[in-house]
Amino acid sequence: MKPLANPTYLRALRGQSTDYTPVWIMRQAGRYLPEYRATREQAGSFLDLCRNPELACEVTLQPLRRFPLDAAILFSDILTVPDAMGLELSLNEGIGPQFAHPVRNAADVERLPVPDPEDELGYVMEAVRTIVSALDRSVPLIGFAGSPWTLATYMVEGGSSKDHRRVKAMIYESPQVTHRLLEITSDAVAAYLNAQIAAGIDAVMIFDTWGGTLGDRAYREFSLAYMARIVSQLNLGDENDPDGRIPVTLFTKGGGQWVEDIAATGCDGIGLDWTTSLGDVRTRLQDRVTLQGNMDPMSLYASPEQIRAEVKAVLDDFGSPGRHVFNLGHGILPDINPDHVAVMIDAVHSLSRR
Amino acid sequence: MKPLANPTYLRALRGQSTDYTPVWIMRQAGRYLPEYRATREQAGSFLDLCRNPELACEVTLQPLRRFPLDAAILFSDILTVPDAMGLELSLNEGIGPQFAHPVRNAADVERLPVPDPEDELGYVMEAVRTIVSALDRSVPLIGFAGSPWTLATYMVEGGSSKDHRRVKAMIYESPQVTHRLLEITSDAVAAYLNAQIAAGIDAVMIFDTWGGTLGDRAYREFSLAYMARIVSQLNLGDENDPDGRIPVTLFTKGGGQWVEDIAATGCDGIGLDWTTSLGDVRTRLQDRVTLQGNMDPMSLYASPEQIRAEVKAVLDDFGSPGRHVFNLGHGILPDINPDHVAVMIDAVHSLSRR
Repeated sequence: MKPLANPTYLRALRGQSTDYTPVWIMRQAGRYLPEYRATREQAGSFLDLCRNPELACEVTLQPLRRFPLDAAILFSDILTVPDAMGLELSLNEGIGPQFAHPVRNAADVERLPVPDPEDELGYVMEAVRTIVSALDRSVPLIGFAGSPWTLATYMVEGGSSKDHRRVKAMIYESPQVTHRLLEITSDAVAAYLNAQIAAGIDAVMIFDTWGGTLGDRAYREFSLAYMARIVSQLNLGDENDPDGRIPVTLFTKGGGQWVEDIAATGCDGIGLDWTTSLGDVRTRLQDRVTLQGNMDPMSLYASPEQIRAEVKAVLDDFGSPGRHVFNLGHGILPDINPDHVAVMIDAVHSLSRR
Repeated sequence: MKPLANPTYLRALRGQSTDYTPVWIMRQAGRYLPEYRATREQAGSFLDLCRNPELACEVTLQPLRRFPLDAAILFSDILTVPDAMGLELSLNEGIGPQFAHPVRNAADVERLPVPDPEDELGYVMEAVRTIVSALDRSVPLIGFAGSPWTLATYMVEGGSSKDHRRVKAMIYESPQVTHRLLEITSDAVAAYLNAQIAAGIDAVMIFDTWGGTLGDRAYREFSLAYMARIVSQLNLGDENDPDGRIPVTLFTKGGGQWVEDIAATGCDGIGLDWTTSLGDVRTRLQDRVTLQGNMDPMSLYASPEQIRAEVKAVLDDFGSPGRHVFNLGHGILPDINPDHVAVMIDAVHSLSRR
């Protein structure tokens, strides 16, 4: 396999020196781009787009044509895994994701299969292979999945939820049933990510969007333990060949308080939202892992000068060059002006150049 | 003034020894109690209830008749202050709070008055005096207000908001206008709390429900700075007479990462949500302030045995007897069984007795 033309993102995650701080954006292939909206319309629904490898490849590449991003990320959705587990996903404009068969009790949990990813999620693997081929080793491709806890919130609630009351009640009323659900979901996620690795991704990202709604003890027991289990099950390559190893980044939104425990899973990177000081976390972890983040997505509403100032503030907070991957602290919002994104990326590259 | 029959809550906030860990519950006067729902129906709307001193007193006392709580809290709403500033509040079942005149620009901000609390919020002061008289020094009465930042989120959005996009955009696009709004609101809150103190409250609580949506730097600049300003403006009594001093507790939901800075405001107590370890914060702050919290409100869905186990886990997390006021990590939910609340309070008192 030929080397990457731009390995900056992978080097930063491996703790190797880089010429500047690499940057990518959560949801960089998304609604803020007019070309994305056009392809999405061509595809039909959001799910039709996820299930069409050619068009999923097209929207994955769109932000890279506009901006000098240091990584691509597979276009897909975290809920494809519970869908493949038989919950039957639908995504409706204005309502959000809904499952026809939510998981409500022990019997529902015991019925859940661990799907074969090449069989039940073949469209994702085909998209990965198509994107890998199209990227032609220009920048790395990040594959991803939702954390078992985050997937479980949707699986139990039957969709999005303001307060996750049903799944939170489940952990307190039926902790054993919850653990069984998380075990099965973990095995499904690990198999799914290993299939993405086999299909050619260069790095793994696990999104734990709702881990931060858990209590301090419950987070360790119901979310982090299962992300650790997945990390240990992934085929990340030879530990003695750092250039071959596939780095894993864990992102728990609202998880800034738990970074010591997150680092102990053996992950290579930790994603942080904007409520956490990168500098504080760096001091706490002593550069043992790479930090990803963490500009407030809302700061992209500001003027170009203020965006540059915010980028500088994030870089200054991190401090001297080191294990940093620049990103927003959460996904980019659909009404952000793409020109503002260009300003942010240019500021990251120019202000961080060694 | 005669001494309180039960000064446990105030002693814990002042760092004095107590026989057990005191407990109260955020929203203890609320919809989970059938007697509250009956009084609310009698009053008319929620706002009618807030504006009726006799009935506000009645619902304040209801939870104390059922449970051996160690403090009462004034029944009111944080949005009465912006209402008195001319924004015209309405509270509609299912829609939530709405302001007829939201604050959108510099001109709107400059029009805002600092209301005279005895004049514009006289119904609150009358409720305080009625409750103080009815309590007859049995337990302390906590008065409260919203933090300037939290009030500003509602004032700018015009009501509740999923992501506070409008007010977050304002801090990045028009920081000076935002600061002016927060200054005026701070002065209104300080005057309001000083009037409550004059009317007889024994302790102050400031609720910063939305401070945790701010970035690490923005929190200090737009939320904490204004809470600090209020603390410095309050008439808390003689510093050399600890038994006379009115303690102030600041509660930023999602603020566990900022406790050192919160403590530096000069507050007496810090409220914590369930995502933070009390023991960790206690170690970080070395018992300089009292910690309030932090059981997950959702854990009250569990069985009585599991509720006792959760109470024990919270007490154990805090550790040896000290500066702790037991509470939930956020308001009690409307569908909680009051019998479960009784179990929690009994567990706190019996498990913590020295």
